[in-house]
Amino acid sequence: MPENPLAAGVDVGGTSIKCVLTAPDGRIVAGLRSPTPRRGADIGERLTDAIATCVATLSEQAPGPVSAVGLAVPGVVADADGLAMRSENLGWSDLPLRDMVAERLSLPTAFGHDVRVGGLAEARLGSGRTLRSVVFVPIGTGIAAALILDGRPYSAGGYAGEIGHTDVGHGEPCVCGATGCLEAIASAAAIARRYTRRSGRPVAGAEEVVALAGAGDSSALTTWNEALDALAGALAWVASVLAPEAVILGGGLAEAGDALMTPVAERLTANLSFQRRPRLLRAALGDRAASLGSALLAHELLAETCAR
Amino acid sequence: MPENPLAAGVDVGGTSIKCVLTAPDGRIVAGLRSPTPRRGADIGERLTDAIATCVATLSEQAPGPVSAVGLAVPGVVADADGLAMRSENLGWSDLPLRDMVAERLSLPTAFGHDVRVGGLAEARLGSGRTLRSVVFVPIGTGIAAALILDGRPYSAGGYAGEIGHTDVGHGEPCVCGATGCLEAIASAAAIARRYTRRSGRPVAGAEEVVALAGAGDSSALTTWNEALDALAGALAWVASVLAPEAVILGGGLAEAGDALMTPVAERLTANLSFQRRPRLLRAALGDRAASLGSALLAHELLAETCAR
Repeated sequence: MPENPLAAGVDVGGTSIKCVLTAPDGRIVAGLRSPTPRRGADIGERLTDAIATCVATLSEQAPGPVSAVGLAVPGVVADADGLAMRSENLGWSDLPLRDMVAERLSLPTAFGHDVRVGGLAEARLGSGRTLRSVVFVPIGTGIAAALILDGRPYSAGGYAGEIGHTDVGHGEPCVCGATGCLEAIASAAAIARRYTRRSGRPVAGAEEVVALAGAGDSSALTTWNEALDALAGALAWVASVLAPEAVILGGGLAEAGDALMTPVAERLTANLSFQRRPRLLRAALGDRAASLGSALLAHELLAETCAR
Repeated sequence: MPENPLAAGVDVGGTSIKCVLTAPDGRIVAGLRSPTPRRGADIGERLTDAIATCVATLSEQAPGPVSAVGLAVPGVVADADGLAMRSENLGWSDLPLRDMVAERLSLPTAFGHDVRVGGLAEARLGSGRTLRSVVFVPIGTGIAAALILDGRPYSAGGYAGEIGHTDVGHGEPCVCGATGCLEAIASAAAIARRYTRRSGRPVAGAEEVVALAGAGDSSALTTWNEALDALAGALAWVASVLAPEAVILGGGLAEAGDALMTPVAERLTANLSFQRRPRLLRAALGDRAASLGSALLAHELLAETCAR
């Protein structure tokens, strides 16, 4: 084992595979992107091929050998078993991806869920890097949370963090079958959909609704305020029960910047009485969070192997 | 150090100090209760005296020497600093109780908040003893939660677990200054108070409201159902975000038994869609939880000292 081993972090996304090669301190040595293989027959084999090619290409750019690999995948994931259990978007089920990649590359391979792995990277290398307990909330098509408590990821076997499916009281149906879910009013997808339903006007996405709200469009203002109230209410719950030092907002909606952060912070303060108010931070690592987090997992795996 | 050291667990309550002496496996060797000194001048000294007397009396009944002490106190507590910061009921502020007791007894002394320490005991020795992640919710004058996640207590420096002050949407004011708090509708105190306000009839406590609801009193039924709905809603949030294997209900209200557990379990199931449904359990250790948990902390302190 080299003194400062390199690890590859691989984030399998809906359209691209994002890879980084990092040193143990998280410093990026090389990076690349490659298209995600399309769904269909032999998706497991083709995905393993694509990942192996990425790692091989990265290692050609590296000053030393690659000592371990970390993988992050979306959907339903059994972290400890290395199983990509289900992804509607990517068209797989019960894929033993960790072991397939480990066997192909003959390297120690770590494995995790993309949101949780991205949250780990934000906590250790990004906006939360000086803090012990942070909750990372990426807001895009859906809303999830990654919990890093006392410095450790908490996943409850993959079941934790479903903040998008907490009832915030609006009474509208959610795709999950329940009503009132945070995700059904405050995800980027819900904001766009609810604005169009209210105004009759199609929009490209939540970004456009935020811009329209800023320009005084009353349907956009109502839709946006409802999303902000719901989000701040859910974060007040997080502050009361988990009291993290910070909540880190990420995902597509966080691109709205101050238009999101300022009103959520104001509403969060108004919702709390004696509780510790978490710092509200924007994610720092953008769409590299999950690949950087995968590389962190790979370095941890190497350290554990050495300690044994 | 003896091979199987004995540790004293001391729970300083509003009316009595509860003490147990336990073996490392949690087995109780001796126990006693003694009145809590009244508020007033020199409360710190008098409390230290009372605790020292309890431990001395216990050690006379013991087969061997007492090797460590654990303390559990109510109110605002800085666990790591050993400070009993504030208790309205007991009339102290900024009391360095851990160090006062450690000095008086010349024994290693552990320290914690009574709810969190009681939760630890329920998780390790009580209803959660085979589980890794449990949330303990004692319901009495107030409502709090102790979080034991992946086998470790999570306290966020004493700020975590304020589930009683999450907004469940009823809009009524809470003593904390916010509105809609769970505690203001579902604590034993709130159930009694709200029933009397609604019916004009004084009651001895929530127990009487539960009995009246069972007998068909419509004000009692409404008050009780509102409490059950609020409680189940808050537990659904816990299931979505923390996904513990079990939620353990304790405190005075849990004495209602099936009248509480059955309808909360039904409502919790109805509130969840795809989330993992936690088992709903009744606390097993009763009012001995915090003294047993204090003794656990003392044994842990001994084990850490030995390992160093």
